[in-house]
Amino acid sequence: MNYNMQCPIARTLDIIGERWTIMVLRDLVIKGPRKFQDFQAAFPGISPNTLSARLKTLEENGIVARHFYEEHPPRAEYRLTDKGRLLGPVLKALREWGTKFAS
Amino acid sequence: MNYNMQCPIARTLDIIGERWTIMVLRDLVIKGPRKFQDFQAAFPGISPNTLSARLKTLEENGIVARHFYEEHPPRAEYRLTDKGRLLGPVLKALREWGTKFAS
Repeated sequence: MNYNMQCPIARTLDIIGERWTIMVLRDLVIKGPRKFQDFQAAFPGISPNTLSARLKTLEENGIVARHFYEEHPPRAEYRLTDKGRLLGPVLKALREWGTKFAS
Repeated sequence: MNYNMQCPIARTLDIIGERWTIMVLRDLVIKGPRKFQDFQAAFPGISPNTLSARLKTLEENGIVARHFYEEHPPRAEYRLTDKGRLLGPVLKALREWGTKFAS
Protein backbone atom coordinates (compact mmCIF):
# COMPACT_ATOMS: atom_id res chain seq x y z
CA MET A 1 0.00 0.00 0.00
CA ASN A 2 1.57 3.24 -1.14
CA TYR A 3 1.47 6.65 0.47
CA ASN A 4 0.85 8.31 -2.92
CA MET A 5 2.72 11.45 -1.91
CA GLN A 6 5.32 13.47 -3.76
CA CYS A 7 7.62 13.58 -0.72
CA PRO A 8 10.86 11.65 -1.39
CA ILE A 9 10.70 10.10 2.08
CA ALA A 10 7.22 8.72 1.31
CA ARG A 11 8.39 7.47 -2.08
CA THR A 12 11.35 5.65 -0.52
CA LEU A 13 9.04 4.11 2.08
CA ASP A 14 6.68 2.99 -0.70
CA ILE A 15 9.56 0.74 -1.80
CA ILE A 16 11.31 -0.28 1.44
CA GLY A 17 8.82 0.67 4.15
CA GLU A 18 6.87 -2.58 4.42
CA ARG A 19 7.48 -4.99 7.26
CA TRP A 20 10.60 -7.18 6.79
CA THR A 21 12.04 -5.33 3.79
CA ILE A 22 14.70 -3.45 5.72
CA MET A 23 15.63 -6.63 7.61
CA VAL A 24 16.12 -8.37 4.25
CA LEU A 25 18.36 -5.52 3.10
CA ARG A 26 20.28 -5.68 6.37
CA ASP A 27 21.07 -9.36 5.83
CA LEU A 28 22.26 -8.68 2.27
CA VAL A 29 24.55 -5.91 3.54
CA ILE A 30 25.96 -7.88 6.48
CA LYS A 31 26.05 -11.41 5.05
CA GLY A 32 26.32 -10.87 1.30
CA PRO A 33 24.36 -12.78 -1.38
CA ARG A 34 21.49 -14.81 0.07
CA LYS A 35 19.23 -17.57 -1.14
CA PHE A 36 15.48 -17.55 -0.48
CA GLN A 37 16.02 -20.28 2.14
CA ASP A 38 18.70 -18.21 3.88
CA PHE A 39 16.14 -15.47 4.52
CA GLN A 40 13.61 -18.03 5.73
CA ALA A 41 16.14 -19.43 8.18
CA ALA A 42 17.12 -15.97 9.41
CA PHE A 43 13.51 -14.78 9.82
CA PRO A 44 11.30 -17.61 11.07
CA GLY A 45 8.44 -15.13 11.50
CA ILE A 46 8.08 -14.32 7.80
CA SER A 47 5.79 -16.38 5.58
CA PRO A 48 7.09 -17.59 2.18
CA ASN A 49 4.45 -15.48 0.41
CA THR A 50 5.47 -12.33 2.25
CA LEU A 51 9.17 -12.95 1.69
CA SER A 52 8.52 -13.59 -1.97
CA ALA A 53 6.50 -10.36 -2.29
CA ARG A 54 9.20 -8.31 -0.54
CA LEU A 55 11.96 -9.71 -2.75
CA LYS A 56 9.84 -9.10 -5.86
CA THR A 57 9.33 -5.43 -4.91
CA LEU A 58 13.05 -5.03 -4.28
CA GLU A 59 13.88 -6.67 -7.61
CA GLU A 60 11.33 -4.62 -9.56
CA ASN A 61 12.83 -1.47 -8.10
CA GLY A 62 16.38 -2.46 -9.00
CA ILE A 63 17.54 -2.78 -5.38
CA VAL A 64 18.32 -6.49 -5.56
CA ALA A 65 19.11 -8.69 -8.54
CA ARG A 66 18.74 -12.44 -8.85
CA HIS A 67 21.72 -14.43 -10.02
CA PHE A 68 21.31 -18.05 -11.12
CA TYR A 69 24.20 -20.15 -9.90
CA GLU A 70 22.79 -23.51 -10.99
CA GLU A 71 20.75 -24.45 -14.03
CA HIS A 72 19.35 -27.92 -13.25
CA PRO A 73 17.39 -27.33 -11.13
CA PRO A 74 17.53 -23.53 -11.41
CA ARG A 75 18.79 -22.00 -8.18
CA ALA A 76 19.06 -18.30 -7.58
CA GLU A 77 20.62 -16.05 -5.03
CA TYR A 78 19.79 -12.43 -4.33
CA ARG A 79 22.41 -9.71 -4.38
CA LEU A 80 22.31 -6.00 -3.71
CA THR A 81 22.70 -3.80 -6.77
CA ASP A 82 24.64 -0.53 -6.66
CA LYS A 83 21.34 1.27 -6.17
CA GLY A 84 20.60 -1.08 -3.28
CA ARG A 85 23.98 -0.51 -1.68
CA LEU A 86 23.21 3.20 -1.68
CA LEU A 87 20.53 2.46 0.92
CA GLY A 88 23.42 1.81 3.31
CA PRO A 89 23.08 5.24 4.99
CA VAL A 90 19.46 4.40 5.91
CA LEU A 91 20.54 1.19 7.65
CA LYS A 92 23.46 2.96 9.29
CA ALA A 93 21.22 5.71 10.69
CA LEU A 94 18.71 3.15 12.02
CA ARG A 95 21.52 1.13 13.60
CA GLU A 96 23.16 4.13 15.24
CA TRP A 97 19.94 5.37 16.79
CA GLY A 98 19.05 1.84 17.94
CA THR A 99 22.47 1.28 19.48
CA LYS A 100 22.12 4.47 21.44
CA PHE A 101 18.46 4.42 22.44
CA ALA A 102 16.77 1.09 21.82
CA SER A 103 18.98 -1.32 23.75
CA MET B 1 4.20 -6.43 16.08
CA ASN B 2 7.85 -6.56 17.08
CA TYR B 3 10.73 -8.33 15.38
CA ASN B 4 12.01 -9.59 18.75
CA MET B 5 15.63 -9.49 17.62
CA GLN B 6 18.72 -8.15 19.32
CA CYS B 7 19.82 -6.26 16.19
CA PRO B 8 19.69 -2.48 16.79
CA ILE B 9 18.12 -1.96 13.35
CA ALA B 10 15.27 -4.30 14.29
CA ARG B 11 14.86 -2.61 17.66
CA THR B 12 14.62 0.82 16.03
CA LEU B 13 12.07 -0.51 13.55
CA ASP B 14 10.06 -1.98 16.44
CA ILE B 15 9.51 1.64 17.47
CA ILE B 16 9.33 3.60 14.21
CA GLY B 17 8.86 0.90 11.56
CA GLU B 18 5.09 0.74 11.45
CA ARG B 19 3.16 2.36 8.65
CA TRP B 20 2.74 6.18 9.04
CA THR B 21 5.17 6.61 11.94
CA ILE B 22 8.02 8.00 9.86
CA MET B 23 5.60 10.29 8.03
CA VAL B 24 4.44 11.64 11.40
CA LEU B 25 8.07 12.26 12.39
CA ARG B 26 8.72 13.93 9.06
CA ASP B 27 5.88 16.41 9.65
CA LEU B 28 7.21 17.21 13.14
CA VAL B 29 10.69 17.84 11.73
CA ILE B 30 9.53 19.97 8.79
CA LYS B 31 6.54 21.78 10.28
CA GLY B 32 7.27 21.83 14.01
CA PRO B 33 4.76 21.11 16.81
CA ARG B 34 1.54 19.56 15.52
CA LYS B 35 -1.90 18.90 16.87
CA PHE B 36 -3.72 15.62 16.34
CA GLN B 37 -5.94 17.34 13.79
CA ASP B 38 -2.92 18.64 11.88
CA PHE B 39 -1.78 15.08 11.28
CA GLN B 40 -5.28 14.06 10.22
CA ALA B 41 -5.38 16.91 7.71
CA ALA B 42 -1.91 16.05 6.38
CA PHE B 43 -2.63 12.31 6.06
CA PRO B 44 -6.23 11.72 4.97
CA GLY B 45 -5.45 8.01 4.58
CA ILE B 46 -4.76 7.39 8.28
CA SER B 47 -7.59 6.42 10.63
CA PRO B 48 -7.89 8.23 14.00
CA ASN B 49 -7.24 4.92 15.82
CA THR B 50 -4.06 4.27 13.88
CA LEU B 51 -2.82 7.82 14.31
CA SER B 52 -3.55 7.63 18.01
CA ALA B 53 -1.67 4.33 18.33
CA ARG B 54 1.35 5.67 16.43
CA LEU B 55 1.54 8.81 18.58
CA LYS B 56 1.18 6.72 21.73
CA THR B 57 4.10 4.49 20.75
CA LEU B 58 6.21 7.54 19.95
CA GLU B 59 5.31 9.14 23.27
CA GLU B 60 5.95 5.94 25.27
CA ASN B 61 9.38 5.71 23.69
CA GLY B 62 10.27 9.32 24.46
CA ILE B 63 10.39 10.40 20.83
CA VAL B 64 7.52 12.87 21.06
CA ALA B 65 6.10 14.70 24.07
CA ARG B 66 2.65 16.18 24.50
CA HIS B 67 2.39 19.79 25.59
CA PHE B 68 -0.94 21.19 26.77
CA TYR B 69 -1.44 24.70 25.51
CA GLU B 70 -5.00 25.13 26.73
CA GLU B 71 -6.70 23.87 29.87
CA HIS B 72 -10.44 24.32 29.22
CA PRO B 73 -10.93 22.28 27.16
CA PRO B 74 -7.55 20.54 27.36
CA ARG B 75 -5.73 20.84 24.04
CA ALA B 76 -2.39 19.27 23.33
CA GLU B 77 0.24 19.49 20.67
CA TYR B 78 2.97 17.00 19.93
CA ARG B 79 6.63 17.99 19.82
CA LEU B 80 9.81 16.10 19.05
CA THR B 81 12.05 15.47 22.05
CA ASP B 82 15.84 15.58 21.81
CA LYS B 83 15.81 11.81 21.40
CA GLY B 84 13.28 12.22 18.60
CA ARG B 85 15.34 14.89 16.86
CA LEU B 86 18.23 12.41 16.79
CA LEU B 87 16.19 10.37 14.31
CA GLY B 88 16.92 13.17 11.82
CA PRO B 89 19.69 11.16 10.09
CA VAL B 90 17.18 8.38 9.33
CA LEU B 91 14.83 10.84 7.63
CA LYS B 92 17.73 12.51 5.83
CA ALA B 93 19.00 9.18 4.45
CA LEU B 94 15.51 8.19 3.27
CA ARG B 95 15.04 11.61 1.63
CA GLU B 96 18.39 11.55 -0.14
CA TRP B 97 17.86 8.09 -1.59
CA GLY B 98 14.31 9.00 -2.62
CA THR B 99 15.40 12.21 -4.27
CA LYS B 100 17.96 10.32 -6.31
CA PHE B 101 16.10 7.12 -7.14
CA ALA B 102 12.40 7.27 -6.39
CA SER B 103 11.29 10.33 -8.34
